[in-house]
Amino acid sequence: MLETFDADLAKRHIEGLWKMYAVPPSKEPKPALKPYLWKWKDVYPDLVRAVEVVELGVNEERRVLRLVNPGMQRKRSTTQTLQMSFQIVNPGEIARAHRHTIAAIRFVVKGKGAFTNVNGEKFEMAPGDLILTPGCSWHDHGNESAEPIVWIDGLDSPLVHYLGVGFFEHFSQERQPITQPPGYSLARSGTLRPVQSGSPQTLPYRYSGEAALETLRARKGDAGSPYDGVFLEYVNPLTGGHTFPTLSCCIQMLRRGERTKGHRHTSSACYHVVSGSGSTYVGEEILTWEAGDCFVVPPWSWHNHANGSRAEEAVLFSINDSPLLESLGMHREETLAE
Amino acid sequence: MLETFDADLAKRHIEGLWKMYAVPPSKEPKPALKPYLWKWKDVYPDLVRAVEVVELGVNEERRVLRLVNPGMQRKRSTTQTLQMSFQIVNPGEIARAHRHTIAAIRFVVKGKGAFTNVNGEKFEMAPGDLILTPGCSWHDHGNESAEPIVWIDGLDSPLVHYLGVGFFEHFSQERQPITQPPGYSLARSGTLRPVQSGSPQTLPYRYSGEAALETLRARKGDAGSPYDGVFLEYVNPLTGGHTFPTLSCCIQMLRRGERTKGHRHTSSACYHVVSGSGSTYVGEEILTWEAGDCFVVPPWSWHNHANGSRAEEAVLFSINDSPLLESLGMHREETLAE
Amino acid sequence: MLETFDADLAKRHIEGLWKMYAVPPSKEPKPALKPYLWKWKDVYPDLVRAVEVVELGVNEERRVLRLVNPGMQRKRSTTQTLQMSFQIVNPGEIARAHRHTIAAIRFVVKGKGAFTNVNGEKFEMAPGDLILTPGCSWHDHGNESAEPIVWIDGLDSPLVHYLGVGFFEHFSQERQPITQPPGYSLARSGTLRPVQSGSPQTLPYRYSGEAALETLRARKGDAGSPYDGVFLEYVNPLTGGHTFPTLSCCIQMLRRGERTKGHRHTSSACYHVVSGSGSTYVGEEILTWEAGDCFVVPPWSWHNHANGSRAEEAVLFSINDSPLLESLGMHREETLAE
Amino acid sequence: MLETFDADLAKRHIEGLWKMYAVPPSKEPKPALKPYLWKWKDVYPDLVRAVEVVELGVNEERRVLRLVNPGMQRKRSTTQTLQMSFQIVNPGEIARAHRHTIAAIRFVVKGKGAFTNVNGEKFEMAPGDLILTPGCSWHDHGNESAEPIVWIDGLDSPLVHYLGVGFFEHFSQERQPITQPPGYSLARSGTLRPVQSGSPQTLPYRYSGEAALETLRARKGDAGSPYDGVFLEYVNPLTGGHTFPTLSCCIQMLRRGERTKGHRHTSSACYHVVSGSGSTYVGEEILTWEAGDCFVVPPWSWHNHANGSRAEEAVLFSINDSPLLESLGMHREETLAE
Repeated sequence: MLETFDADLAKRHIEGLWKMYAVPPSKEPKPALKPYLWKWKDVYPDLVRAVEVVELGVNEERRVLRLVNPGMQRKRSTTQTLQMSFQIVNPGEIARAHRHTIAAIRFVVKGKGAFTNVNGEKFEMAPGDLILTPGCSWHDHGNESAEPIVWIDGLDSPLVHYLGVGFFEHFSQERQPITQPPGYSLARSGTLRPVQSGSPQTLPYRYSGEAALETLRARKGDAGSPYDGVFLEYVNPLTGGHTFPTLSCCIQMLRRGERTKGHRHTSSACYHVVSGSGSTYVGEEILTWEAGDCFVVPPWSWHNHANGSRAEEAVLFSINDSPLLESLGMHREETLAE
Repeated sequence: MLETFDADLAKRHIEGLWKMYAVPPSKEPKPALKPYLWKWKDVYPDLVRAVEVVELGVNEERRVLRLVNPGMQRKRSTTQTLQMSFQIVNPGEIARAHRHTIAAIRFVVKGKGAFTNVNGEKFEMAPGDLILTPGCSWHDHGNESAEPIVWIDGLDSPLVHYLGVGFFEHFSQERQPITQPPGYSLARSGTLRPVQSGSPQTLPYRYSGEAALETLRARKGDAGSPYDGVFLEYVNPLTGGHTFPTLSCCIQMLRRGERTKGHRHTSSACYHVVSGSGSTYVGEEILTWEAGDCFVVPPWSWHNHANGSRAEEAVLFSINDSPLLESLGMHREETLAE
Repeated sequence: MLETFDADLAKRHIEGLWKMYAVPPSKEPKPALKPYLWKWKDVYPDLVRAVEVVELGVNEERRVLRLVNPGMQRKRSTTQTLQMSFQIVNPGEIARAHRHTIAAIRFVVKGKGAFTNVNGEKFEMAPGDLILTPGCSWHDHGNESAEPIVWIDGLDSPLVHYLGVGFFEHFSQERQPITQPPGYSLARSGTLRPVQSGSPQTLPYRYSGEAALETLRARKGDAGSPYDGVFLEYVNPLTGGHTFPTLSCCIQMLRRGERTKGHRHTSSACYHVVSGSGSTYVGEEILTWEAGDCFVVPPWSWHNHANGSRAEEAVLFSINDSPLLESLGMHREETLAE
Repeated sequence: MLETFDADLAKRHIEGLWKMYAVPPSKEPKPALKPYLWKWKDVYPDLVRAVEVVELGVNEERRVLRLVNPGMQRKRSTTQTLQMSFQIVNPGEIARAHRHTIAAIRFVVKGKGAFTNVNGEKFEMAPGDLILTPGCSWHDHGNESAEPIVWIDGLDSPLVHYLGVGFFEHFSQERQPITQPPGYSLARSGTLRPVQSGSPQTLPYRYSGEAALETLRARKGDAGSPYDGVFLEYVNPLTGGHTFPTLSCCIQMLRRGERTKGHRHTSSACYHVVSGSGSTYVGEEILTWEAGDCFVVPPWSWHNHANGSRAEEAVLFSINDSPLLESLGMHREETLAE
C-alpha cells in the first residue's frame, strides 16, 4: 500500500521522506569522494600522447587531462567543488581569449616561455609559478618557447556547475591586446597604492615559483603546523585574505624525515607534488607519491603526511575549498588526541 | 584512435577536456532546474493519505512530502541548493530531538497548537509563523492540539549534501528539556541587549505570522519593488543581515491587479502561496497558483508575477539562495529593458 | 643658554620635546576628568529658575543646563568626548528644526507630551524614553502638553569640536513637515525589512522607557555583569552594533543590596539615576546618588557600584565612548583580582 | 539677573547653553588650525644647535623639535590629532627601548646608518625610508654611522592625549634584544603567509624610500588624482587598508609644471617636502615650499598644489587623519566646481 502511495506521489514529483530515511542519516560526513593518486609517470606519457592524438580545432582548443575522482563518476570532477587538471601546450599554440564565472589558477609544472594574459596584462610562466585568473577576467594563453609546456589548472568549476550560475564569453579577437605594462598587478597590490575608494577585491596575479621556494627554505626552522609542516597560503594580494572566495592555494614543505600528526576537516584538497617524495595516510589508505604526482584528500578523512627521505625536502602545492566552508560557517576541524 | 586514447585514460580516472567540450560551453546559465508548480489540492489529500498509509517508527518518524523538481531527478531535491517539503503532524505525535549541520525553517500552513523546541526554548506555531532552526541547534517538535497541523520545511540540505559536510546527532532523550523562559530569543535579539563581546551570529527565532501580515498591509502604499511588489526579507534578528548564510526567507504582497516587471538573477527560489491567487510567468511557462500551492523559479530565468484578482491581495512566502551567491561574488541580476 | 634656544624656537612655532618631558610620561592614563556628582535637588530648581530668567530668542532658543566637569574647565564639557545636559521645555515652546554633524540622544526625565521630529518622523516622548538623533539628521522638538518637560541631552559634541569637523544648518522652516507615518523607523528596523542593497547604517529611533524597565525586570534573575549588575546596551536597531559610532547608551539595574566588583577601562561614562539610590566608588571618592542625579566616571579609574537599599532596585542610564575607543584599538579593561 | 544666575550655576559646575550660543554655531568647520609652513633652512640650523645646547640625560633622551601650529597654542601640537617633529640623532646615541599607546612613524630625511628596533626586529633607515611603529610595540633607535641622522616623527599623540588613554612603559633594558631575523616582518606580510587564524591587524614595517620613488616614477604617466597628482598611500601590509586606524601615510608626485585642482575635506594633513619645490594654496594663503620644509593644511580648507618647476618633479610625504574620520562617518569632501 505504501508502494502504491509512493508511485502515486512520484507522478506528482513528490517523494516521501521515509524513502530517504530507509537509510538512517549518518552521524558524520561519509564522503563520496575517494582518496586517490594519479602518477606523473602515467600522466606525462598521456600528455605526450594527447599531443599526437588530439587535433586542436574549434571545440578542442586545449589539450587538458582532467583528473576524475573515482567517487565522482557522475560529476566527472576531482572533488565535489574543485577541478584539478594537467594541460600541455605545444610551441606556438594558443588558447583563444575568453572569460567565465569560473575562477582559475595555473601552476607551472614543466617548461618555460609560456604566458597567460589576464585583463590586458601578460604574465610569464616559469616552473613553480602560480597565476591567478579571478572569475570573470579575460584570459588567453600560449607558448612562445621551443618546448612543450605543462601546467596544472585548478578551477572552482564543479561548484559553478552545481550552482548553475556559469557565464562564458569569447573575446572579440583570438588574443586580447596587452594594454597594461609588465608589473601592473604587482604595482596595484604593493604596499604603495593609489588613494581611492571602491577598490576591487580580486586581482589577476603571478606568484613567483622561485620566491615561493625561497620563502619555504627561509622558514625551514619554523615550528610550522603539526599537521602540515611549513604550510603557507598564497593570500589575496589586495586584502591578505584567502586566495579566492571559493578556493585557497597553499604550498608546504615536509622537512627531511618529517611525519605530521593526523587531523581531519570538512574541507577537501587536491595536491600536486612539486619535489621530493613521501606518503600521505588517508584513513586506511596509503598514497605514496613522488614529484609530479597528484592526489586527493576527501572531507572529514583522517590524514597525515610523511616525508620518508632523510636527504631531501618534499614540497606540495595544493588547492582546497576552506574559504567556501568558512563563509558558510561549515568549516570544522578535529585533531587526533595524543 | 582518439577513442582508444579516451578508453585508456578512463582506466586511469582521467578524462580529456575535449569530451566535455564536444558541447561548447553555454554563454549563460542553462539551469537543469525546471519551473514547476505543486498544487495544494493535490498535496493536501496526499498529506491526509500519508497519515493513513505511513506508520511512524524508528526510521520513519515524520510524515514529510518532499517536493522533487523534475529537473533534479538524481538529486531528489526542490532546487540544487534548497529543499521545500510539506510536513503533517497528528495530535500527540512528536519528532525526536536531534541536531544537524543543515539549517531549517518551518512556515506554518494549517492548524494551531504545534511547537518546535530549539536549544531549550519552546516556540508555539500558529498559521503564518516562521521558525528558524539554525544549523547545529537542537530541535524537536510536536502537536499538542486536537487537529493535524501542516507546515512547510525549508532546508539547505541539498547544499550540505553536495558539500559532503553534514553531521547528524540524536539528543540523549526523546524531547529536550525546556531550559529557557518564553521570549528568551526575542529578548536576546531586542534593541536592549546584554553588553558582552563575542556574541553569536545566529539565533533560534519565531517571526509571528500575524505581525508579518500586518507589516505587509502597513506597507501596501509603498512603491515596493518593480519586480516583486511589497517585498520583505525576514532578517537575521541579531545582525540585520540575511536570514541564514545559505538561505534567505522572504514574504511579499502582490496588490490587487498588480503585475510586476520581468527580471532574472542567478539565485533560485521556492515559493509557497499564503493567500490569494495569480500567475507567475517563467520564460515560456505560466504557473497559475492559488493558496497553498508551491512553485520553483530556476536561476537566470526571466520571470514576473501577476495578481489577477481585483478583489484580493496575494501573499507569497519564499526561500532563496541569494546569500550564498552573494558571498561568492556570483550573484548577478538583469532587468527587462522598458 | 637652553632658555635662549627655547625662546628662539618659540618664535618659529617650534618646541623642544625636552620641555614636554620635564615631566616624565605617565605609565598609565592620568585623566584630567574628575569623578563628579550633580544633584537633582540642585539641578531641578535651576531648571525652574532658567524658565524664569532666560528669555528665549534668536540665539537662546533652548533652556539647557550643561554639566561641566571640574576637570574640563577649558573645554566646558562633561567628559573629553561627551556632553550631558538637562533641558527644560515649557508648554508651547519649540526648538527650530536644524541638523548638525553632532549625534544626539534624548532621555526623558519628567513630563509627558513632548515630541522630537527626526527626518520627517514624529517621536512622542514619555519618561524613560530614549530618542536617537543620528549625526546629520534634521530634528526639532516641542512640548504639546500643559506641563514643563525635562529631558537629558547626550551628545558627542566635545569630540566633534575637538576634531574641528562640525557642520550646522537650519531647516528652511521653523518646524519640519511630518512626512512619515507613525512607526516608520520601527518598521524599517523590524525583523521584516524591504529587500534592498546599500542600506543606511543609522536610523532615528525611539526606545520605549516602559519596555526598557520591563526588560530589566525580566532579567532580574540573570547573573548579569559582575561589574554592573543587569547591564544592557541600546543597540543600533539596524545592525545590532553600538548605538552610535561615537557613543553607546546603556541602562542597568543594581538589584536590592547588590554591590558590584571593581574594574577600570579606558572609556569614560556619564550616568543619570533613573530610580533608586546608592553609591558609586571611584578611586578614593564616593558618589552617593539618588533619583535624578548625574555623575561621571573618568577613564582608567577603579570603580564599582552599590545599591544600599534592601527595598528597591536602582536603575542607571548612561552614555559612554567605548565604540570610539574600540574602533581605534584603544579600549582596554582591567578587573580587580579577587 | 541672568548674570547672577550664571554665577550661581558656575558654582555647581553647570553652564547655560545660552553662554555658548552667544556666538551662533558656525555652518561649516572653522578650524582653529592654521595653514603654516616651517622652512628647512630654519629648522636644520636649529637641529644642529640642539645638538650643541641640549644635553641628553634621563628625561631628555631625544633631541626632537616639535612643530607647533600657531592655532594650537594650548595643545602644543601640529594638528588637533597629529604631531609632526624633526629628530636629530648623533653618532652613537640611542633612545631607550619603550612602548606606548601612541602609534608612530619615522620618515628619514638625512643620513644613513640609523636603525629602529621594533618588537625584536631591527630596521635599517636610509633617506626616504618609512618605518611603522604601531601602538604598543616595543621600540628603540640609534645611530651606528659617523654622521648625524635626521628624521621626521609622525605620531597620533594629540589624539591619545585628548582621549586620555595613553599608557607608557620602559623596557627592562636600554636596548631590546634582536630576536627576529632580518626581513621577518616583510615575510609575514608577503603574499605567502602561514595558514593560521586570529592574525594580528598591524605590523612593524619598513617601506623602502628607493622603492617609493621608483613607484612614483613608474606611475608618472598615470592620470593620477586631479587634486594631488600621483598620490599613493602606504597601505597596511597585512590588510591593504589604511596605514594605521588613526593615521594614514601618503606620498605624492607633482609632475613638472603640474597644478592641481582645488578641493577641501574634513581631514587635516601635515606635509614634508622630499624633493623639488612649489606652492600650496590654502584659502587666502600661499605656502611656498622647497625640499625639507614642512607645512599644514587645516580641515575643510580649500587647497591645491602647484609644482612651479618645469625641470624637476616635486615629491611630498604626508600624514593625515582620514582613517579616524572615516570610521566615525565624519569624512566629507567637496571639490571646486569647474
